[in-house]
Amino acid sequence: MNVDGKHYRTIWIKEDNPHVVQVIDQRHLPHKFVIEDLATLDDVAWAIKDMHVRGAGLIGAAAGYGMYLAALRAASESFMEALAADGEKLKQTRPTAVNLAWAVERQLQAIAAVEGDIDVRIQTALETAKAIADEDADFCRRIGEHGVAIVEEISRSRKGETVNILTHCNAGWLAFVDYGSATAPIYAAHDRGIKIHVWVDETRPRNQGARLTAWELAQHGIPHTVIADNVGGHLMQHGLVDLVIVGSDRTTYTGDVGNKVGTYLKALAAADNKVPFYAALPSSTFDWVMRDGVKEMPIEQRDGEEVRCIEGLHDGEIKRVLLTPAKSPAANYAFDVTPARLVTGLITERGICEASAQSVLGLYPEKRGLRGI
Amino acid sequence: MNVDGKHYRTIWIKEDNPHVVQVIDQRHLPHKFVIEDLATLDDVAWAIKDMHVRGAGLIGAAAGYGMYLAALRAASESFMEALAADGEKLKQTRPTAVNLAWAVERQLQAIAAVEGDIDVRIQTALETAKAIADEDADFCRRIGEHGVAIVEEISRSRKGETVNILTHCNAGWLAFVDYGSATAPIYAAHDRGIKIHVWVDETRPRNQGARLTAWELAQHGIPHTVIADNVGGHLMQHGLVDLVIVGSDRTTYTGDVGNKVGTYLKALAAADNKVPFYAALPSSTFDWVMRDGVKEMPIEQRDGEEVRCIEGLHDGEIKRVLLTPAKSPAANYAFDVTPARLVTGLITERGICEASAQSVLGLYPEKRGLRGI
Repeated sequence: MNVDGKHYRTIWIKEDNPHVVQVIDQRHLPHKFVIEDLATLDDVAWAIKDMHVRGAGLIGAAAGYGMYLAALRAASESFMEALAADGEKLKQTRPTAVNLAWAVERQLQAIAAVEGDIDVRIQTALETAKAIADEDADFCRRIGEHGVAIVEEISRSRKGETVNILTHCNAGWLAFVDYGSATAPIYAAHDRGIKIHVWVDETRPRNQGARLTAWELAQHGIPHTVIADNVGGHLMQHGLVDLVIVGSDRTTYTGDVGNKVGTYLKALAAADNKVPFYAALPSSTFDWVMRDGVKEMPIEQRDGEEVRCIEGLHDGEIKRVLLTPAKSPAANYAFDVTPARLVTGLITERGICEASAQSVLGLYPEKRGLRGI
Repeated sequence: MNVDGKHYRTIWIKEDNPHVVQVIDQRHLPHKFVIEDLATLDDVAWAIKDMHVRGAGLIGAAAGYGMYLAALRAASESFMEALAADGEKLKQTRPTAVNLAWAVERQLQAIAAVEGDIDVRIQTALETAKAIADEDADFCRRIGEHGVAIVEEISRSRKGETVNILTHCNAGWLAFVDYGSATAPIYAAHDRGIKIHVWVDETRPRNQGARLTAWELAQHGIPHTVIADNVGGHLMQHGLVDLVIVGSDRTTYTGDVGNKVGTYLKALAAADNKVPFYAALPSSTFDWVMRDGVKEMPIEQRDGEEVRCIEGLHDGEIKRVLLTPAKSPAANYAFDVTPARLVTGLITERGICEASAQSVLGLYPEKRGLRGI
């Protein structure tokens, strides 16, 4: 999407040097737009571990490009062994990121399968990295094409009045390669000239909404307003939200949506006020085995310091401030699960379905017959 | 309640100088405990306006003491006229604070009614100020005595295991003269040896939970954990909350609870998970005319800067940091209304009742026959 009027992806090969990968270093957002050069696998591993890049789709794409950089430097006599070891190193940076391990394995298989000398294998690694990134962007683009129909329908029923969309956390293009998942229908609607306005939940404790989603929308010129996470219920009670779209970190094939903590509260308010509530996700996010997300989905507990302290801009510098009494402990559950009964529908790259096993498997019939389904 | 092991109220006459009122300057909490001397009506007006003191009960008590300080200095030849003008000045500091106007009027009537010279009138003003503060503390103490029965019952049903209570914002003793409303049953339970633990919603944007409630509980030695406002739903889904108690800024006699924004979301989660949800309030908080709180209650919109920026401690100093993109606007709805259907009960100084007109008027029969009831 656009930054200062120019189109960017979140990761790409440097224009004048094909041995260098560039990313947006998201640690500095929204206060500074910093592009970082990554020249080695270790650079990529650190960028993932230290969260210069984050989000399922982008982490997968970064791993793909990381394996390409590894291939550039691997010694010819132990090429595949070196790459396998580098792949392990990458996987350890975020052990729970499904797309990361998947991208590493895909690269190893693609590089092993090709016949020819090292240069041919390196070329394969580059093409595979680009394919992973292109597919991610394409899946998100298709989510946008399907999801925009929902926004268009609401716009028609409102006779062209502004459609107010609420989103939580950042399921935007910064979490993928382009378009995003929850934001893809928003960008598509804006680009088609539909009048929209986005309520951006700040998404404590890490404030991905206030920092990343607000920045994305501002850069692309989409009207938006940042709100505290507490406010969405009041807005829905008063008819100020027409549609909720969130992303998902893991969705059971039965339709339970795991996402950033606080999503469940917005889904409850949406149901209470008859506001449609959608999760937008590429199908890589589906868990094809888990039946009961609330009972079974493991929820990461992160460091309480993320709740006790926050970073922001003070006199042009990023400062970290303490919000609580020095001795008060804090708990930091990072995700929650919204039961399928509260979810109006799922927007995937293949289309929109209900949040039920029957409807999900209708879109993904090849998954029927997997263990437990 | 206790601060560093010593009992405090939020406002009192200075020990060695009866012409000075002291308050806890709450702007510095939780990082510093600062006691402020107030020697004139203007001192009190500024302390209210600049939020050194806040909370319905405490604002009323501060107004009472402010009128006493005014009486000390009013010229004898135009005593009542001067006091009336001073009262107007006080009322303008927080025009929507019901207790403020009420305390000013009560003082003016009490002082006018007494016979005798100036000294007698000043003595009356002092006694009235003390009475207003004592009554506030006594109402909260009684809320605690009624509410503790709910905690005891849950403790029994859990066979003495820790009772987990969630609260939102600060309806603690810092908002009143002592005990607080939502916290009164918590302090009473703790003082009776019932094992409790409090989940403290940080309460964005002004973080009264993280700043004030956490500080209160820490000082009184009550186990607690600060959480982002997004987390309560997840906790309730997983059986980690036994009881929700919140305060209220305005409650309709039909049982709709106006309170700090985000309360409604917690009430929805409590209902969805069958967790009892109570509002604790002195009866001065009841609106005896309004029938439909969601439709009729005016909701204050505050400055969006409170969302875009936050204050905290950095290198021993309070710093304000920017959280959002420089140009992203923010909306700041300060309150929401929880419909009576989501409220298990109301805890008042006269006892506990259901959130319905019939049950509320059962406790306050003298209000029957008011306009609209």
